[in-house]
Amino acid sequence: MTTPPPDPRTAGSPEPLTYAAAGVDLAAAEAVVARIRPHVERTATEGVLGSVGGFGGLFALPGRRWRNPVLVSAADGVGTKIEIARRMGRHDTIGVDLVAMVVDDLVVPGAKPLFLLDYIAVGRLDPAAVEQIVAGVADGCERAGCALLGGETAEHPGVLAADSYDVAGFGVGVVERDALLGPQRVSPGDAVVAMASTGLHANGYSLARRITEGMDLDDDHGLRLQSLGEALLRPTRIYCVDCLDLVANTEVHALCHVTGGGIAGNLPRVLPAGLGAVVDTTTFTPPMVFEVLRRAGRVPDDEMWRTFNMGAGMLAIVADGREAVEHLRGRDVDAWVCGGVDTSGRVRLAGLGQGRR
Amino acid sequence: MTTPPPDPRTAGSPEPLTYAAAGVDLAAAEAVVARIRPHVERTATEGVLGSVGGFGGLFALPGRRWRNPVLVSAADGVGTKIEIARRMGRHDTIGVDLVAMVVDDLVVPGAKPLFLLDYIAVGRLDPAAVEQIVAGVADGCERAGCALLGGETAEHPGVLAADSYDVAGFGVGVVERDALLGPQRVSPGDAVVAMASTGLHANGYSLARRITEGMDLDDDHGLRLQSLGEALLRPTRIYCVDCLDLVANTEVHALCHVTGGGIAGNLPRVLPAGLGAVVDTTTFTPPMVFEVLRRAGRVPDDEMWRTFNMGAGMLAIVADGREAVEHLRGRDVDAWVCGGVDTSGRVRLAGLGQGRR
Repeated sequence: MTTPPPDPRTAGSPEPLTYAAAGVDLAAAEAVVARIRPHVERTATEGVLGSVGGFGGLFALPGRRWRNPVLVSAADGVGTKIEIARRMGRHDTIGVDLVAMVVDDLVVPGAKPLFLLDYIAVGRLDPAAVEQIVAGVADGCERAGCALLGGETAEHPGVLAADSYDVAGFGVGVVERDALLGPQRVSPGDAVVAMASTGLHANGYSLARRITEGMDLDDDHGLRLQSLGEALLRPTRIYCVDCLDLVANTEVHALCHVTGGGIAGNLPRVLPAGLGAVVDTTTFTPPMVFEVLRRAGRVPDDEMWRTFNMGAGMLAIVADGREAVEHLRGRDVDAWVCGGVDTSGRVRLAGLGQGRR
Repeated sequence: MTTPPPDPRTAGSPEPLTYAAAGVDLAAAEAVVARIRPHVERTATEGVLGSVGGFGGLFALPGRRWRNPVLVSAADGVGTKIEIARRMGRHDTIGVDLVAMVVDDLVVPGAKPLFLLDYIAVGRLDPAAVEQIVAGVADGCERAGCALLGGETAEHPGVLAADSYDVAGFGVGVVERDALLGPQRVSPGDAVVAMASTGLHANGYSLARRITEGMDLDDDHGLRLQSLGEALLRPTRIYCVDCLDLVANTEVHALCHVTGGGIAGNLPRVLPAGLGAVVDTTTFTPPMVFEVLRRAGRVPDDEMWRTFNMGAGMLAIVADGREAVEHLRGRDVDAWVCGGVDTSGRVRLAGLGQGRR
């Protein structure tokens, strides 16, 4: 070791410092590993090969099965829905939202999700809380049919409050190049099919939190059978398995994951230049939580539709709307034809403000 | 929309609420997208196909080139090195550290990094600061030869302080199944080759920050030519390109990314059951920043070696140590034989505490 000259300005510590004395709890880190292992293991799929010393997760992609495989990858978080989880003291469902945000981006071009990795940053490492979070991620992976291949849990005492945390998810899927869905397949006359959402999913929470700041989350506020907090925390529906089945059995041209910005913000992303669509908002039956938020925040109707999914978390643009709806309903997915593709060049939401209040 | 019965307990807002009024700055979000685009574009490699409406990044993996491709994936952060960046007010190098942490995990089983995605959580969305962070990520991707395929920037006003942020990286690489490196290839008599580090890389910062809490980061503290802050913020060396070249040209059995836990914590992860290794610490010339930390914190020698990389950020376990060192030096990588594999069943650090002070 090269020894620099002594420096009288270097204060020095009164006691010798160690990693443990600096606040890093290695026992807690080991406890986390032990607690999350069974959750990771229950998501293992055919391709999982384990890892080399844990440096990276290994996943076999059988080369013969794929002619021109395209890997699709997405990263996402759950926004400030986490703060609702914190207010409710319940952390085993945020992971489902996280997986949903990622895998339902992967399925948009038609990819089958293969695996997911999570990143969890915590203020203070509480093994039981981290286990809850990872259990939710594993639940989501099971629903999506993908493996939880790895992840990282980071303790950031200076950056996050002790009971605060953040999660990010990263997923990889695969699709044959000549099977890619997207704008290039969409034509005027295609039907737009909506698939029902379970509530806000993981978007619009900055607005929802602002509206509900002074409201009692334990009260039902007219929601019947559930509290406002339960409605706001309700896990995101995961669509990818049903979407892939729809793609395999009917003529699907594009899929649209309705996230931040709502239908108006997302549907244009999967339409080719020059084409547009009309979506009839009167065909929607938004979960009641949206009406509670609209009233309490006196949110204008068009702002509701620009911020929230308003009852449909995934859209499919298909050749035959009725066939698609029947197929989805056969799989217990509440679906309906909500509009159609035209040559208007823009997405219009029809029927806003009609027949209500 | 289903209308629930009016609820007198629902307070309601005095003014109608919108997404913008709730503190979400859509203009800033658009500015971020515009600012990071050129950085993303300069990392584009052959496989990048763009994306479908930005829902997921697409990367073509030519099927004919791979017989039995194994995807390798890793997620990581940079720990609390971010707090050093914040104290220094410099955010364009943390991205290099992030890429290094991820891609040099991917190369451990011998995988070529294909692409990376980043997740950035900020307290308040400052487009210029986010651009600095992403510029660093793009720099790292260029050095690693991988594409920045996507990412997510999340604003968490309630969770992170306005000037605070966190980053996570996710990467995917590919390796032929029959070319996987790892413990199964390691034999007694193999040489352990060390590759020089640039400093702490992104590990041990909880201890380093604790030691340097009261120290002036702008002062050199005997480091010569650089301040303590510069030495602590120095970007991590990225080894994957040199490692892959070494693998292609010499007989490499395993690679070991020296991260948290140092050599003692990481080398056992790539040794098979029953084998061990001796690493001669007197062959190391740790960068001076380690000596400054050791003195200022009065950190015991073995604790230094259990916490920091002490001058070697990557180890290669090879059939011929001299050949590997020559090959690496021919690529301007400072490398040396630091030890060997034996049948002791454990990793020993020899020479600690000798010939110094």
